[in-house]
Amino acid sequence: MGLVVALLQLNPTVGDLAGNAAEVERAVALAAANGADLAVTSELVISGYPPRDLLRDPEFIQRCADVTAAIETPIPLIVGTPLPPTSDRQLPGNGSMRIVPGRKAKVATRKQLLPTYDVFDELRYFEPDKAPGILRLSENLSIGVTICEDAWQHAGEVPADYDADPIEQLAAWQHQGEPLALSVNLSSSPYHLHKEGTRGDVVRAAAKTLGHPYLLCNQIGGNDDLLFDGRSLAAWPDGRMIQAPSWCIGVLLVDIEDGNGETSRWLPWPDGECCTECDCKVEIVDAGSEPSVPESGTDLLAAITTGLGDYCRKSGIKKLVLGMSGGLDSSVCAAIAVRAVGAKNVLGLSMPSRYSSDHSIADAKATAEALGIELHSHSITALHQAAEAELNDELVDGNPVARENIQSRLRGMMVMAAANSRGAMAITTGNKSELAMGYCTLYGDMVGGYAPIGDLYKSEVYDVARALNSEAVQFGQTPPITESTLTKPPSAELAPDQTDEDTLPPYETLDAILHAHIEEGASSSTLIASGFDESLVNWILERLHSNEHKRWQMSPAPRVSNRAFGQGWRQPLAAKK
Amino acid sequence: MGLVVALLQLNPTVGDLAGNAAEVERAVALAAANGADLAVTSELVISGYPPRDLLRDPEFIQRCADVTAAIETPIPLIVGTPLPPTSDRQLPGNGSMRIVPGRKAKVATRKQLLPTYDVFDELRYFEPDKAPGILRLSENLSIGVTICEDAWQHAGEVPADYDADPIEQLAAWQHQGEPLALSVNLSSSPYHLHKEGTRGDVVRAAAKTLGHPYLLCNQIGGNDDLLFDGRSLAAWPDGRMIQAPSWCIGVLLVDIEDGNGETSRWLPWPDGECCTECDCKVEIVDAGSEPSVPESGTDLLAAITTGLGDYCRKSGIKKLVLGMSGGLDSSVCAAIAVRAVGAKNVLGLSMPSRYSSDHSIADAKATAEALGIELHSHSITALHQAAEAELNDELVDGNPVARENIQSRLRGMMVMAAANSRGAMAITTGNKSELAMGYCTLYGDMVGGYAPIGDLYKSEVYDVARALNSEAVQFGQTPPITESTLTKPPSAELAPDQTDEDTLPPYETLDAILHAHIEEGASSSTLIASGFDESLVNWILERLHSNEHKRWQMSPAPRVSNRAFGQGWRQPLAAKK
Repeated sequence: MGLVVALLQLNPTVGDLAGNAAEVERAVALAAANGADLAVTSELVISGYPPRDLLRDPEFIQRCADVTAAIETPIPLIVGTPLPPTSDRQLPGNGSMRIVPGRKAKVATRKQLLPTYDVFDELRYFEPDKAPGILRLSENLSIGVTICEDAWQHAGEVPADYDADPIEQLAAWQHQGEPLALSVNLSSSPYHLHKEGTRGDVVRAAAKTLGHPYLLCNQIGGNDDLLFDGRSLAAWPDGRMIQAPSWCIGVLLVDIEDGNGETSRWLPWPDGECCTECDCKVEIVDAGSEPSVPESGTDLLAAITTGLGDYCRKSGIKKLVLGMSGGLDSSVCAAIAVRAVGAKNVLGLSMPSRYSSDHSIADAKATAEALGIELHSHSITALHQAAEAELNDELVDGNPVARENIQSRLRGMMVMAAANSRGAMAITTGNKSELAMGYCTLYGDMVGGYAPIGDLYKSEVYDVARALNSEAVQFGQTPPITESTLTKPPSAELAPDQTDEDTLPPYETLDAILHAHIEEGASSSTLIASGFDESLVNWILERLHSNEHKRWQMSPAPRVSNRAFGQGWRQPLAAKK
Repeated sequence: MGLVVALLQLNPTVGDLAGNAAEVERAVALAAANGADLAVTSELVISGYPPRDLLRDPEFIQRCADVTAAIETPIPLIVGTPLPPTSDRQLPGNGSMRIVPGRKAKVATRKQLLPTYDVFDELRYFEPDKAPGILRLSENLSIGVTICEDAWQHAGEVPADYDADPIEQLAAWQHQGEPLALSVNLSSSPYHLHKEGTRGDVVRAAAKTLGHPYLLCNQIGGNDDLLFDGRSLAAWPDGRMIQAPSWCIGVLLVDIEDGNGETSRWLPWPDGECCTECDCKVEIVDAGSEPSVPESGTDLLAAITTGLGDYCRKSGIKKLVLGMSGGLDSSVCAAIAVRAVGAKNVLGLSMPSRYSSDHSIADAKATAEALGIELHSHSITALHQAAEAELNDELVDGNPVARENIQSRLRGMMVMAAANSRGAMAITTGNKSELAMGYCTLYGDMVGGYAPIGDLYKSEVYDVARALNSEAVQFGQTPPITESTLTKPPSAELAPDQTDEDTLPPYETLDAILHAHIEEGASSSTLIASGFDESLVNWILERLHSNEHKRWQMSPAPRVSNRAFGQGWRQPLAAKK
């Protein structure tokens, strides 16, 4: 075996400096006990990523550096942390410190390329460095140290041009006679579906240019509105790669001389905290091959479970409440809630009205039973009648949607009452397709602190539902999403015999247009040229961009941007990097 | 008279390129007819500021440049506009074009310093330029052109260090023999209370270093969550200044040789659209003096009226609905709403409960009468009873705040029903002090698309109320805010005999602590050292920062940051620049 480098794939909590440092200590001890010579964390593992406005407090920055310097490790360790500014009027650095047993902790490097697009705001908070990170660990061992984005420009995977290319700078350094054994990259690289291929391109491009192995340590977990999938990577100059499992905590041991990955291995977290989703093996990717592509529904299920679970755990939320209509969205959300906080901590509310169908009540009941959660039934009929009586003068000649919204808002009030009374968080069950179209009620079905499926198109919600059912069958349990829920036409049930398709185009078409426009940036002319009906495209984009459906009226439409919504109420699974 | 430069102090609408260009044409014609030799607009006047994600669309950028190039002007004109990138992978520029009659429109300059802090996000959208803007208008006339932030570094008025100082660069240029007659600054400099002094420091510092007059053209008006007050400025090297009026549209004619400002003058918008707030005169500020400080209540009143008025006009909102409790906040909001959209377009809802006092109903009525608006009364009693009956099992042993929130949420539902039915926007009436403390109900009194007083501390709301009453008296009208509203103890009236001070400290103390912490960044130790009670400081800051009162529970607390909340529901009047 040659030099063994450990990538510590952890799940830090923003602001929990002591807790994050303790996890690093635990992981590096595990790595050392298994033969690692050197360990590397993900980006900003001490502060958690993204620390956002915490970074504006100089005391916080100093505390991060102090906590990092005090980490105990049996082997050399590179830790991602905010670093104090080098002058009074500078911003802090997004950097790393080198901790070597018996020596004083020392700044290793600061990030050079600061992404400020999509979900990233780093130029707001950090001062960019201008020199590449070279770390001399011993007389015979020097390595390159880069932070996340530093490697992406080189692979052409950033939307705009930076002045510098840290990978080229490291390569130039080597040409001047400074031999580097390997380079590492401390990453907080957010998840989106099928990102594994892109990250592979980045590490392969760097390894090829540098002529030595390039190792990327990524974090896992959800922090506020960002999700990270792990999948730490090592690439060799000839294109061979190994990839750590997704959605779980542990240590990837990389044998630098072992380009086939046969002696490299994954160390799961010892007490079973690792994960329940993966089989915890290193994936070996041959030169010329791509990392295997996970089944979408399964990967998204792991993603949104991690997101809601971490949001609750890290914010101290123990219980969840949601309205259950028997429809697809709320049934899937109930199942996710159970995975996040446990069945005994989830309360469903069935809130039928005069327009509710029998099957919707029965479907909600069947799902609640399959999941083993409490389901309380509260009819909105009496309140609905009282509201219509009191507000008749306001409603009589007005927009009929106002009447539909009343029902949804009474339900929102009930969900919040149940949540507030027991110190629980309400979750909101809307999907990205309906949110984009404003097919939802502001302060009604949109109440809640978190939207577990808010960044999934309706068709993806079906994928997740099928993955949930398959898994239940696999474990000999009752599938939580009933056949009726999966096959009946989606309906808001706010008017007699209403279905979503009374207002919206079929979800298959809607999702294809929305996906192309929102995720890929296709303009209306591009969409029409690619074969979509012109009037349909215009109707959808107009509704998407219209003020009429924005916050001041019925319901908000998302900003058409890959940028996170902010306020944490939706998961930007579709973040582009 | 010497050279006369016109500063076009306009109110652009984000995205309305043709409308904005037409306003520029109208203003430059007015300036030319009054003897101007050269005219300058504010920053990004063609796209409106802040254009945000519109800037991600290359077609939008190109349209801005095309619309700008097509502007007709009788005199040379410098127009602020986004500029197409100079290479494929670059971002657009935040720049200006020079339009000279009979010559081809030409790029004049691009902004060098891109603020990315507080309410600014410019590094997200723009590519910074590296050279200062020098514009040769004729063989004998060259001027310096800077954009907003370009001048602020020089006066030490930015939070961090930029690599370059465009004012020093222009000065160096002059030393090399390029004489500049003057320099101009195209600004979109947001309002905060008492900013006039800071802007004066900026233009004075630049004029002194450059040794020639420095002219700053600022926009006025509200765009999304930013407010601009105008107050365009010219400074001479010896420290004399002239300042345009605040909160109104027009043209500041600056006679460059007239350092006393006696031949410089203000041209109001010809048809009375200018404003109703100011007396439309240029203020002459002697060297060593500061611009006069407006009375806080009066200035804030103009600010929030502009904010709500522009939000409605620019978004196509014709009518407003709000709940009126007879308390200070909703009474002031009703008066602001009337000023924004006219009395006949404002509907107040009185929604008494079993806990409402007689005087609160009477005060709401008196205010509505004084303002001449419709006031509909809808009791929540029947709904409240029905809700308590239906939800009794959920509430019986729970947090009593859940019961209070029900009332507030039923009112929120009523306000939204009235708004949705008539295509109006609901406005929410909370102030910054109570929002900071979470003393409000999510989906209850917080419903609405806009919070007119959401960035005013409670004590500032009293200032605004008194300004409203004084103005009414001045015009022989009934003061809209009743004496009882001004003097009774603030109460949410959600429980018997409740007052705000049952839960919160007196507003005078609360506001002092919040202001020092939120606006000035004072830490708890600083606050305690300055004499505030330790346990009180800790209680306030803990509540401010606590998850318990955040979005997932009862009510959201603002992020402790000067950054705008986003989503447009509060006005960052306190923006630091």
